[in-house]
Amino acid sequence: MNILVTGSAGFIGSHLTSRLLNDGHAVIGVDNYISGQRANTKRFFDHPRFRFVEADVSLGMPDTHESLDYVLHFASPASPPHYQQHPIETLMVGAQGTQNALELARRHDAKFLLASTSEVYGDPNVHPQPESYWGHVNPNGIRSCYDEAKRYAEAITMAYHRYHGLDTRIVRIFNTYGPRMRHDDGRVVTNFVHQALAGEPLTVYGDGQQTRSFQFVDDLIEGVTRLMSVRHHEPVNIGNPDEYTVLEFAQIIRDLIDPSLDIIHRPMPQDDPRQRRPDITLAKSLLNWEPRVTLREGLARTIEGFREDRRLLESSDRRGWRPLTFHVAGEG
Amino acid sequence: MNILVTGSAGFIGSHLTSRLLNDGHAVIGVDNYISGQRANTKRFFDHPRFRFVEADVSLGMPDTHESLDYVLHFASPASPPHYQQHPIETLMVGAQGTQNALELARRHDAKFLLASTSEVYGDPNVHPQPESYWGHVNPNGIRSCYDEAKRYAEAITMAYHRYHGLDTRIVRIFNTYGPRMRHDDGRVVTNFVHQALAGEPLTVYGDGQQTRSFQFVDDLIEGVTRLMSVRHHEPVNIGNPDEYTVLEFAQIIRDLIDPSLDIIHRPMPQDDPRQRRPDITLAKSLLNWEPRVTLREGLARTIEGFREDRRLLESSDRRGWRPLTFHVAGEG
Repeated sequence: MNILVTGSAGFIGSHLTSRLLNDGHAVIGVDNYISGQRANTKRFFDHPRFRFVEADVSLGMPDTHESLDYVLHFASPASPPHYQQHPIETLMVGAQGTQNALELARRHDAKFLLASTSEVYGDPNVHPQPESYWGHVNPNGIRSCYDEAKRYAEAITMAYHRYHGLDTRIVRIFNTYGPRMRHDDGRVVTNFVHQALAGEPLTVYGDGQQTRSFQFVDDLIEGVTRLMSVRHHEPVNIGNPDEYTVLEFAQIIRDLIDPSLDIIHRPMPQDDPRQRRPDITLAKSLLNWEPRVTLREGLARTIEGFREDRRLLESSDRRGWRPLTFHVAGEG
Repeated sequence: MNILVTGSAGFIGSHLTSRLLNDGHAVIGVDNYISGQRANTKRFFDHPRFRFVEADVSLGMPDTHESLDYVLHFASPASPPHYQQHPIETLMVGAQGTQNALELARRHDAKFLLASTSEVYGDPNVHPQPESYWGHVNPNGIRSCYDEAKRYAEAITMAYHRYHGLDTRIVRIFNTYGPRMRHDDGRVVTNFVHQALAGEPLTVYGDGQQTRSFQFVDDLIEGVTRLMSVRHHEPVNIGNPDEYTVLEFAQIIRDLIDPSLDIIHRPMPQDDPRQRRPDITLAKSLLNWEPRVTLREGLARTIEGFREDRRLLESSDRRGWRPLTFHVAGEG
């Protein structure tokens, strides 16, 4: 198939591009690098079935002269430090960006898949969250630039399906980790791996008994590709329901990198991320999908990816493509 | 002040325009007549301080060469039959339309007020609804084209306030009735008045014991103009918390028009409107505002307005401006 991926230089978009190329498809990647990384484009630059267009999909979609079979809309800042730095761009890529991608799919009579998020559930008062749960989101708080943009993106996707008969899919992506994560995304896995690779103590906020559920990126991509090939227009959760405490994450990462490192505790910040856990009953029955990668294995592969990135950065002559942009705040 | 009103040909936009002109302001009205009525523009056509631009604010704002002091964004289909007929236009006027209006305000260093709605509360599980309630909205149901568009509009309004320092206001408008309502809006007051004026029995669905709260449009406009002049950026509810049963509405309207008419009962349809009731504590303290028009008085004035519209329609020669477009489905 000919597939256009918006956000192809992002963490998830680039893994999706890898998988689609491996599966024999042709991919047109689009990114404006607001939060995507040039290294994730360079990665595919010599691939004969990959083309890249640097463009802001909120302003318009690149003209593609060949036919398109699928449009996958993954473009958006996704981590709190990024979307809070770019609130208006985040709102726009959810609204104008999604609509431009839907219109492109409509012109090409292509299928369309929206990358939505567990953030549409907000601060849930139902655990775990099934797709039928309507969520608990503050429509005008500081996170609303992301949460409401994604809820709007779902609404307009369903409107194009209902009104124009477009063949659409919506995946609600829960917390995901793996190689190629941005090093400044502020999330717990990234922070711990960075600290441990730098030989520093790992910082746990509070007593570390708060839990998180994270899926390894390969599991997510497997779920997305399965969803692409079934006809189901309502949202589908893809996430890992296994919960670990933050302290367990710290301990596993420390043990994989350097068991002699300390784990230190700091006071809990006010805006600690909200706790969510996917109900994946639908994905199991509809896609015969469930996560397969264990936390230990996923973290080992993530650490290996981060190590490789550090080597690339150190060996880069910085005259041509920069392999990665580092903005690590405070954690060295 | 020089004030631009989007949706000036709508029910509420036109009452707002009347009030602003009466208060001595100059008004630029903008509408594309997707759900606005040309009669509501004709009404002000000879007014020396009124100018009108026919434009779709989702596609761009008219260039205005004079300065602007306030941008009031009231454009949107607002009744279920209209927004479900135009779901994508409804989504667009919430996103692109709101952003275009915000950008216009920013260019002119003008203040901005967003007409939001009690629909952001969705199908609430808190009664009455204070502004702090986050709502209970299905992000991808058939009403989501309106509900999510307005939640998005609130989010981007707050983003422009936080990020660009724009001086913004958000009013959450609850059910409103009065003269100049569209005759095909499908709401209970409109339906009853139409049936009674046509000498037909009034149709009540179910036993009529379900309740509604409606504010008279003059009360709403008073609240909006008070909100314009205070500095409060978070949303403010403006609505009438008095609840009446649907049967009481039917009885009052019948008695005001023709006490000999029958009230007949029909089975309740599946998508009966959701029940909401405003908590107006904030408007009372912040604006010293509360509704003043009694239901009986408001209905009498509404009926008088509808009678006048019927006379205008009957006397219209239809060669020039049509005073009203009638699309009364089934209720003749």
